[in-house]
Amino acid sequence: MSDRPLTPLLDRVATPADLKAFSDMELRQVADELRSETISAVSETGGHLGAGLGVVELTVALHAVFDAPRDKIVWDVSHQTYPHKILTGRRDRIRTIRQKDGLSGFTKRSESPYDPFGAAHSSTSISAALGFATARDLGGDCDTGHGDAIAVIGDGAMSAGMAYEAMNNAGHMGKRLIVILNDNEMSIAPPTGAMSTYLSRLYTEAPFHTLKDAAKGAVSFLPEPFREGAKRAKDMIKGMAMGGTLFEALGFSYLGPIDGHDMNQLLPVLRAVKARAHGPILLHVLTKKGKGYKPAEERADRGHATAKFDVSSGEQKKSKPNAPAYTKVFANALLAEAEADHRICAVTAAMPDGTGLDVFGATYPSRTFDVGIAEQHAVTFSAGLAAGGMRPFAAIYSTFLQRGYDQVVHDVAIQRLPVRFAIDRAGLVGADGATHAGSYDVAYLSNLPGFTVMAAADEAELVHMVATAAAHDDGPIAFRYPRGEGTGVEIPGKGTPLEIGKGRIIREGKGVALLSFGARLKEVIEATDALEARGLRPTIADARFAKPLDRELILDLARDHEALITIEEGAVGGFGSHVAQLLAEEGVFDTGLKFRSMVLPDTFIDQASPADMYTVAGLNAEDIEAKVLSLMGVTRMDRRA
Amino acid sequence: MSDRPLTPLLDRVATPADLKAFSDMELRQVADELRSETISAVSETGGHLGAGLGVVELTVALHAVFDAPRDKIVWDVSHQTYPHKILTGRRDRIRTIRQKDGLSGFTKRSESPYDPFGAAHSSTSISAALGFATARDLGGDCDTGHGDAIAVIGDGAMSAGMAYEAMNNAGHMGKRLIVILNDNEMSIAPPTGAMSTYLSRLYTEAPFHTLKDAAKGAVSFLPEPFREGAKRAKDMIKGMAMGGTLFEALGFSYLGPIDGHDMNQLLPVLRAVKARAHGPILLHVLTKKGKGYKPAEERADRGHATAKFDVSSGEQKKSKPNAPAYTKVFANALLAEAEADHRICAVTAAMPDGTGLDVFGATYPSRTFDVGIAEQHAVTFSAGLAAGGMRPFAAIYSTFLQRGYDQVVHDVAIQRLPVRFAIDRAGLVGADGATHAGSYDVAYLSNLPGFTVMAAADEAELVHMVATAAAHDDGPIAFRYPRGEGTGVEIPGKGTPLEIGKGRIIREGKGVALLSFGARLKEVIEATDALEARGLRPTIADARFAKPLDRELILDLARDHEALITIEEGAVGGFGSHVAQLLAEEGVFDTGLKFRSMVLPDTFIDQASPADMYTVAGLNAEDIEAKVLSLMGVTRMDRRA
Repeated sequence: MSDRPLTPLLDRVATPADLKAFSDMELRQVADELRSETISAVSETGGHLGAGLGVVELTVALHAVFDAPRDKIVWDVSHQTYPHKILTGRRDRIRTIRQKDGLSGFTKRSESPYDPFGAAHSSTSISAALGFATARDLGGDCDTGHGDAIAVIGDGAMSAGMAYEAMNNAGHMGKRLIVILNDNEMSIAPPTGAMSTYLSRLYTEAPFHTLKDAAKGAVSFLPEPFREGAKRAKDMIKGMAMGGTLFEALGFSYLGPIDGHDMNQLLPVLRAVKARAHGPILLHVLTKKGKGYKPAEERADRGHATAKFDVSSGEQKKSKPNAPAYTKVFANALLAEAEADHRICAVTAAMPDGTGLDVFGATYPSRTFDVGIAEQHAVTFSAGLAAGGMRPFAAIYSTFLQRGYDQVVHDVAIQRLPVRFAIDRAGLVGADGATHAGSYDVAYLSNLPGFTVMAAADEAELVHMVATAAAHDDGPIAFRYPRGEGTGVEIPGKGTPLEIGKGRIIREGKGVALLSFGARLKEVIEATDALEARGLRPTIADARFAKPLDRELILDLARDHEALITIEEGAVGGFGSHVAQLLAEEGVFDTGLKFRSMVLPDTFIDQASPADMYTVAGLNAEDIEAKVLSLMGVTRMDRRA
Repeated sequence: MSDRPLTPLLDRVATPADLKAFSDMELRQVADELRSETISAVSETGGHLGAGLGVVELTVALHAVFDAPRDKIVWDVSHQTYPHKILTGRRDRIRTIRQKDGLSGFTKRSESPYDPFGAAHSSTSISAALGFATARDLGGDCDTGHGDAIAVIGDGAMSAGMAYEAMNNAGHMGKRLIVILNDNEMSIAPPTGAMSTYLSRLYTEAPFHTLKDAAKGAVSFLPEPFREGAKRAKDMIKGMAMGGTLFEALGFSYLGPIDGHDMNQLLPVLRAVKARAHGPILLHVLTKKGKGYKPAEERADRGHATAKFDVSSGEQKKSKPNAPAYTKVFANALLAEAEADHRICAVTAAMPDGTGLDVFGATYPSRTFDVGIAEQHAVTFSAGLAAGGMRPFAAIYSTFLQRGYDQVVHDVAIQRLPVRFAIDRAGLVGADGATHAGSYDVAYLSNLPGFTVMAAADEAELVHMVATAAAHDDGPIAFRYPRGEGTGVEIPGKGTPLEIGKGRIIREGKGVALLSFGARLKEVIEATDALEARGLRPTIADARFAKPLDRELILDLARDHEALITIEEGAVGGFGSHVAQLLAEEGVFDTGLKFRSMVLPDTFIDQASPADMYTVAGLNAEDIEAKVLSLMGVTRMDRRA
């Protein structure tokens, strides 16, 4: 650890209260040290670097001026909270971040009283902060006491409807509430949407005011000596067409924009806000992602989590992949389909990189739509496209599609529109932990009438499923696939549409049938190999479809085997439940069948490697093997009895 | 039918194309006749009256100026489309609206090519219209051809995040798109939120411009003769602080406000929009709900669907209830709990009447929060309240909670916060049809770790469940209950908390066990009475909890009976699936159990009375009886064999 940075002032900060002893000049040095420490830590662990570096000064200033945990600082999405964690008693564990048994990559209530609200999905912070402000005014019982409620939200997160819903409500309620708009012109991908243009104009027309003229529309917040200057500034910028009127229209006082890397602006403005704010106020702070670390600044437009890296060069230490990632396979398969069908287009909610649609967009820019962090709109916009004769693929992670669930039901399923859902990150996802697990989509889609729901067993299957979806005009269709690398099978150049509702036998056996849905098939095969070494001969089938079920296949398996086990990387209520419903209705249980359904367990599983998480979940090869052994062992005992 | 109004001009309108032959003066008369016809029809059928009366002139003007179905008119929520239906070939069936086998109360794609998009949940229209506009520009294959895309959206619907998401995206894309803001200062309940205040200010400061000065910011849209006047008007209102800048900030041209009941304003402005619009434009139209029918105007602040009524007096023909409605029972029970616990507060998303929270708000105004049509925010705001030490009850219909699903998972369940969900309208709901069915909540909540999920078998049970929720601090809890009247049982003044995860035996029997979850219990009892008359003695149990399951009760039932049937008013994946998972894991199926799970069928069920809908669903007493008979009949045959 000899190459760790020297941090003499930061070493004296055990909790944010220790910042109160420092002068403003010392706080600037704390910020510098905090930046070095953050870079050093992430270089060892990998994780989100740019977001945190962008808010180093803001983090120090907030903790120096406000009194957490009494004051509730709610960081939106919270990728940017590594500096916050370092300042709030977690510095000794910062090099465990996003690792098994380590700190979460996000804020987490159970981790620290300084994390009043966990945030990992975007745009929740204003709602939560308004909840805190309201609870305060109603005398809610809060262990840490009640002070100010402060939401720190990025410009990208502002494209989500729920941020608007919250501002609309906060403006109406009129409670003291502080929203800090951390405007770095960059969420995960370059931001799109009119709001983004609006924000750009705000600071193009009035770039980086110094403190003296930072106070447009908020003169009264400023300490006395600055008032005169602020008034002049206000007059000066009266010509601005837009000002902060969008926020003012929603009932907020608007203050800014100020330079979020200049402590000379941050500290006095935050002190003024704290001393004088009444009602909801929006402070517009301009920052730069990756600030102060050149490699991070320069890659600010690329995917948001980094691997471990060398601090001096910025070079990342990535392991070589063994097979192409599912995401990439999906993107290429979609390209192949779109070549043959001009109606195919693609919709992403601010995740062009993560979903692979950046590749699609490069070839078909006019058929690619990044709607911003706006899953509700993404789904209904896709429904409108489908009603208008297009064949949209909405590529949304399983966990984020939860944001558009009502739209899936109401605008797509009930109208039986041919929207195709490409559901990436199905199952457990690793370092992002429980908040990003794709656990529920099979359950929440498979009971929708007219829906077709598939899961890819490997990357070749994914290619065929893209082709199946492309060919399927009779209502909505979804296909899910996991995060990470494929299994290494040969990938066809173009897929062949599968027969709807038909699974396949992978290996014929007897006694026990293993019916897999999705990418656990690899584990099932591995388990079967081990079981064969013990003399068992399980049948393996790949269901391909959770809806419609392959009734014939399933009933045949049930009839021809003593035991039937379903395996899926989803929660109860999904594939296995639909199989159970079929078996029950058909009277298969009446005379006995050893039926088991292996699903994700009834717990939220903390971050680790996906393999480790599946160990916790009990869905790896050895778990499947053990399940079969216990089930068939019981059988042998029964027969001895 | 002798008392039907005389409608000589309307009688000549078979399709909207017939409107083209009329002069503007005749169109005014068509509007008057359409109003009379709408009142007459709804007086016979009941349904949504005020919303339709408010847009009679707008409907006529839109259809006179635009060319549906080539132009896509997307009516948001579409309660207001009775006049639209009358003009678009459905006048002969308008008196069947919301009835079994009749017209839907909403727009419906399968009903008419003039309904390009079904809308029954709020705030979807801009997304859908943008989809149509985009499909048009990409050459999508559309049966009716592609013209303009027009969204008609109410001011209340503007509080929903997805409307903002759609405007943000539309403003960015810059496509020709027409959004008509139908501003009646009244969604279902009086609108709340800063947006509403903003809109009010827009027309307080510039009330009801005549055409000449209606053109603020959009002079170029107006026909030549009006330009000069418009320019003067523009100068005049430069003093307006707000103007339409909120919409302009989002990239829209803003036009208005104009009087939505004055055809002299509507027709020329719509013609100008049609002739000149490029890019997205928002036309702000002021209307009055119930316009032209005094009883409707006066009750505009009350619940939105009316019963049949007498046209001359406006008096409604309501049947007397036999028992208090579940909604009312919930509201009173919550009042009783709130008296004892100052932390209890209530959150509604623009449904204070529908959820009964108007009653709660009258007693506890400072503890009642109507956040607008904003379910995402409602859930996370509740999570923030809970984190701040309050004990919020979020009262949201099953179908609308779908809008906040991700927030339920991410902000409530993962953080294990004590938010209480009061889920009204569980199961099939009658006249509102498939779009409002509460079919999925048991499935989408019961697989969330740490969640407690209850369903009330009757109104007394509901009171106990409110008490249970009030007493439950260990994580989130939900209780569901159906639309309509209770069963008539005695209602306790205050509930007694139930033991978490414990069901109850209703009647001890043998052979077959009927395990009910929720308000189908009444049907189960009725079926059992009939079965007893045939000599069978079913056991009846009320599960009360879908999560956690009463393992002991269920395993006992399975052990002591030949057959076990679960009954619930929800889709597969819910209660029955969790029971099946338990039975499978415990090996109960290994040696045989006649297990069946009666759930909602895999279809969207069209509107009818709830009882008729349950007949379609196969979940009434006779269906349960038949299920038992067939199951036990098979048994007897087996024994003979």
